[in-house]
Amino acid sequence: MSGFEYKILWLDLEHRKERVEKIEGKELLNWIGGSGLGARVVYENVSPWVEPLGRQNNLGFFTGPLTGTMVPSSGRHSVVSKSPLTGIWGEASIGGRWGRMLRKSGYDALVLQGNAEKPVYIWINEGKVEIKEASSLWGLNTYECSTALKQLTSQKAEVCTIGPAGERMVKISGIFTDGEEGRTAARCGLGAVMGAKRVKAIAVYGQRELPVSDPAGLREDLKPVLKRIQEKTRVLGLFGTAGLVIPCEQTGDLPIRNWTGGKWEEGALKISGQKMADTLLTGRYHCAGCPVGCGRRVNIKEGPYAGVKGGGPEYETLGLMGGSCLVDDLEAISYANELCNKYGIDTIDTGNLIAFAIEAFERGFINEEFTGGLKLRWGDPQVLIEMIHCIANQEGKLGSLLAEGFPAIRRFFGKEVAEFAIEAKGLGFPAHDPRAYNSIALGYATANRGACHLEAFSHIFERNMTMPEIGISAVEDRFAVEGKGELVAKSQNLMAVMDSLAVCKFLLFGGVNLTEITGWLNKVTGLSYSVDELLRCGERIFNLKRLFNISCGVNRKDDILPERILRQNRGAGGAAENLPPLEAMLAEYYAYRGWSEEGIPLPSKIKELGLD
Amino acid sequence: MSGFEYKILWLDLEHRKERVEKIEGKELLNWIGGSGLGARVVYENVSPWVEPLGRQNNLGFFTGPLTGTMVPSSGRHSVVSKSPLTGIWGEASIGGRWGRMLRKSGYDALVLQGNAEKPVYIWINEGKVEIKEASSLWGLNTYECSTALKQLTSQKAEVCTIGPAGERMVKISGIFTDGEEGRTAARCGLGAVMGAKRVKAIAVYGQRELPVSDPAGLREDLKPVLKRIQEKTRVLGLFGTAGLVIPCEQTGDLPIRNWTGGKWEEGALKISGQKMADTLLTGRYHCAGCPVGCGRRVNIKEGPYAGVKGGGPEYETLGLMGGSCLVDDLEAISYANELCNKYGIDTIDTGNLIAFAIEAFERGFINEEFTGGLKLRWGDPQVLIEMIHCIANQEGKLGSLLAEGFPAIRRFFGKEVAEFAIEAKGLGFPAHDPRAYNSIALGYATANRGACHLEAFSHIFERNMTMPEIGISAVEDRFAVEGKGELVAKSQNLMAVMDSLAVCKFLLFGGVNLTEITGWLNKVTGLSYSVDELLRCGERIFNLKRLFNISCGVNRKDDILPERILRQNRGAGGAAENLPPLEAMLAEYYAYRGWSEEGIPLPSKIKELGLD
Repeated sequence: MSGFEYKILWLDLEHRKERVEKIEGKELLNWIGGSGLGARVVYENVSPWVEPLGRQNNLGFFTGPLTGTMVPSSGRHSVVSKSPLTGIWGEASIGGRWGRMLRKSGYDALVLQGNAEKPVYIWINEGKVEIKEASSLWGLNTYECSTALKQLTSQKAEVCTIGPAGERMVKISGIFTDGEEGRTAARCGLGAVMGAKRVKAIAVYGQRELPVSDPAGLREDLKPVLKRIQEKTRVLGLFGTAGLVIPCEQTGDLPIRNWTGGKWEEGALKISGQKMADTLLTGRYHCAGCPVGCGRRVNIKEGPYAGVKGGGPEYETLGLMGGSCLVDDLEAISYANELCNKYGIDTIDTGNLIAFAIEAFERGFINEEFTGGLKLRWGDPQVLIEMIHCIANQEGKLGSLLAEGFPAIRRFFGKEVAEFAIEAKGLGFPAHDPRAYNSIALGYATANRGACHLEAFSHIFERNMTMPEIGISAVEDRFAVEGKGELVAKSQNLMAVMDSLAVCKFLLFGGVNLTEITGWLNKVTGLSYSVDELLRCGERIFNLKRLFNISCGVNRKDDILPERILRQNRGAGGAAENLPPLEAMLAEYYAYRGWSEEGIPLPSKIKELGLD
Repeated sequence: MSGFEYKILWLDLEHRKERVEKIEGKELLNWIGGSGLGARVVYENVSPWVEPLGRQNNLGFFTGPLTGTMVPSSGRHSVVSKSPLTGIWGEASIGGRWGRMLRKSGYDALVLQGNAEKPVYIWINEGKVEIKEASSLWGLNTYECSTALKQLTSQKAEVCTIGPAGERMVKISGIFTDGEEGRTAARCGLGAVMGAKRVKAIAVYGQRELPVSDPAGLREDLKPVLKRIQEKTRVLGLFGTAGLVIPCEQTGDLPIRNWTGGKWEEGALKISGQKMADTLLTGRYHCAGCPVGCGRRVNIKEGPYAGVKGGGPEYETLGLMGGSCLVDDLEAISYANELCNKYGIDTIDTGNLIAFAIEAFERGFINEEFTGGLKLRWGDPQVLIEMIHCIANQEGKLGSLLAEGFPAIRRFFGKEVAEFAIEAKGLGFPAHDPRAYNSIALGYATANRGACHLEAFSHIFERNMTMPEIGISAVEDRFAVEGKGELVAKSQNLMAVMDSLAVCKFLLFGGVNLTEITGWLNKVTGLSYSVDELLRCGERIFNLKRLFNISCGVNRKDDILPERILRQNRGAGGAAENLPPLEAMLAEYYAYRGWSEEGIPLPSKIKELGLD
């Protein structure tokens, strides 16, 4: 056993008390850090019945053992909580520089307990913690708050903050770092938890050297890797994730017109990363220590959207605000993206909700009285922008409803809208169509936080990748059925490891394999994980989150997808005919996982993973 | 049309803005005031999808046109909101002196909008409104807060406040007035809404004379009435509602051992109002202008519960903490009652939740690890008291769970506990057994706020009362089936009128009839309601609340009762064999109401009531 340990700073906002917990030994080994240790802490400290916006919920910020080290693309951490949007397990992984700085200030994780009496910010400076009155920050947008808080603390500090939407406890609000070049813990409404806790922002600063057991060995290991990553992810560097718009449209992966369309070639060209590079792009943005640099820096100098400056839209944003709303105006989407970032809301859920609302308007579920006179139309940038204001401000009936997210929509409209409210477990779909990759269907249906493409990320193995270490030695057929249960389970276990370490999944695009990553982990920590032990940790972590959800009432009945996705094909384009046979895949998946037919981990599996 | 009008003070806690709305004419005529006008305002301003603890919810305090006038037993008002406990229509009627004083300060209603940034109190002094910082009050119990706020404002002010449980957003917390002699808006968790809004307390003072159109005529009308009421409610004055313990045990109405017992004669004697009168009673308490004086004043000078001073336990409290938990120690229950009042929680839900927990412990659903070592036992006063502390402080797993109320319990344990979680629509049963009066079963299943004995209060017509004005000219057979649909619907319409006027339902025990009340209303307002018009208002009000609930997803599937109540008889005592045939009664009820088989008001009914 090495001397590696993990320090959690517990902050009780009600009694303004702090406490440091050190985790080491088996507890740390079993859960790695990041998302895994965060899940463990939430499971232990947040009972499944607690009100997510109440004082009994916790909000945790968990780095991994690799966060901020010289390991490439390790500038990540996970935010964890019970989600106020979905009422189940909530988490969001985020890049940037904040997680590294938290570690450099002396803590590997921060957990907020209780709700503060009045708005506060937290300032962690070289390990010293202050909880300070935040009335001057309350109401600021995320960009303004980041700037203002650096003035109050230190220009060298890193800041994470909620926007006005988080203050209002909008259920699709997130937590934002890095100011104008923002990275976001966007999903599951964790910004609303921070808002309920009355914590506007957290500034961190420190100069601690992050512990690395064998720095020379690690440096040696990494030498050949950095170049390989840069070469293999060159396109990602050039065009960002926005570069995916064109290929995804071609393969039938891009959502079109609230998931009813099959092709949108001209639209995709107009909003692509390539187009962005030709027009708005002014530079790229790197998370701490990342050789990829997939972040976009854009600037719009003229026209109706002049003034946009900073982070450009990601693929997900383009897919949902562009393809799904049929808006083919890249400048408008960039403006919409900036609005979401400033207000502090998730662009994925926002895009889905707007596309849903347009269809609901078209079909007569809502009328102009409901929208406050706004005529909801496909492809109208002004509608897109108006609705973002509405949602973030909870304005009018339309904004008030959409701000509560899909679960409220389902409760209000009932069964009739289930077919075209494109979500799973209350979380809107990312911009990847389950009809284009069968494993995505299974992945969305079984992801612990609701429809999520990153919890399995298995479609990369149906596109062009393999990973012999997890038993995937050939690229899989994306329309096959058999084997998807195993593929998704294995991918979920792997991705749980990545989110716990915490490193970016784009490393895999950089040709990095799990054996290498395991080696780096061991050189950082002085431990001696094997690849299989690490994957077993991933399985343990995934199952623990499932157990939390089961305590919240989740079972097979919730592992479902909307009828539109299961019964109505795209009709054209790269995945014109396919419909994912969810039931069959689910049966294989449960069996492979060692779960009952109801989707509940069997006692033998629970024991095997040491979860009893 | 008289010049009668109704003034609502709207207070926006976010922008600290006030606005006065005057309501008159048809809008006022149709909704009367109190609960009815409150329902209208909530329906108009709180969308069914809003988060009850979020900024989009409103909290309204609505007096009626009779509140605080010389009309006897008119010291009442209704608190209305979307309930954080049940997620549907929430309201609680409350006596005391606060409502009268609100009117005397110049407003007939107060609606709080948005959530304040930090703890505040509100001071309404002769119409002038101040929102002031409340950090010195936050954390105080209801008795302390009432005293402290009078010191900050005026000794002549009336105060309503939440306790520490409301601050913590405990889902069964209420709003309390009148300090130690407390009256409570207890049900539906409205204290948690006030806590979420960060409003600790509201002090009101004014000397305005309440408008009465024909004071001389009204005085003349009331002359013979006061004496009649006093005579007919003499027993209520002598023994309070606690005087019901012995007769209710005899008729099979009192809950025993979490609704499994049939007889508890000796226990009932020990905790009865008669016993209280012989031992602890020091006086009685009257709401503003009430000739009945059913409130108890008690004082325990010696023994383990010495120090108890102020309001004594009501029948409901005795039934649920006594009978249902098998605690036959009147001093202990008085202490428990005082604890609930100080913490600010509902004794009805608290008693039910504790009885449920004892049974869950006995049956192995929870163990000592879950209870923090506490051995839950029937009839143990110490267990009762420990658990109240746990709930109000959200302490440990047990307290944390129970503080979220029955809906969270149902979600966590699933179907297995449904049989013995004795609630309807998430609200715990009052201490009246539906097996003792069939109409109670139907009343609980259809009440808009969940299991409520006051929304229909129909069993008074199965006991010893008639009311020819609503077509009940003979006392009904409590075990009959036919006719219960009509009885309950008529009773609900009548009681909606009483809660809107707002007068105490105990007036009916005083031999007052609806024709008299209608006459008083007309003399107060200068209007000319007929009895039938008033009852039509009651029907309109009841249906509007139903429509709100339907928008929240309620329908026939929710008009249900636990299996224990429908399938397991009491086995002994005054209602040994009866099981209420809910389905049959429900069918008659829906038909009589003009609702569909799914329990939804038909378009014709909606039109008829002017609700379209």
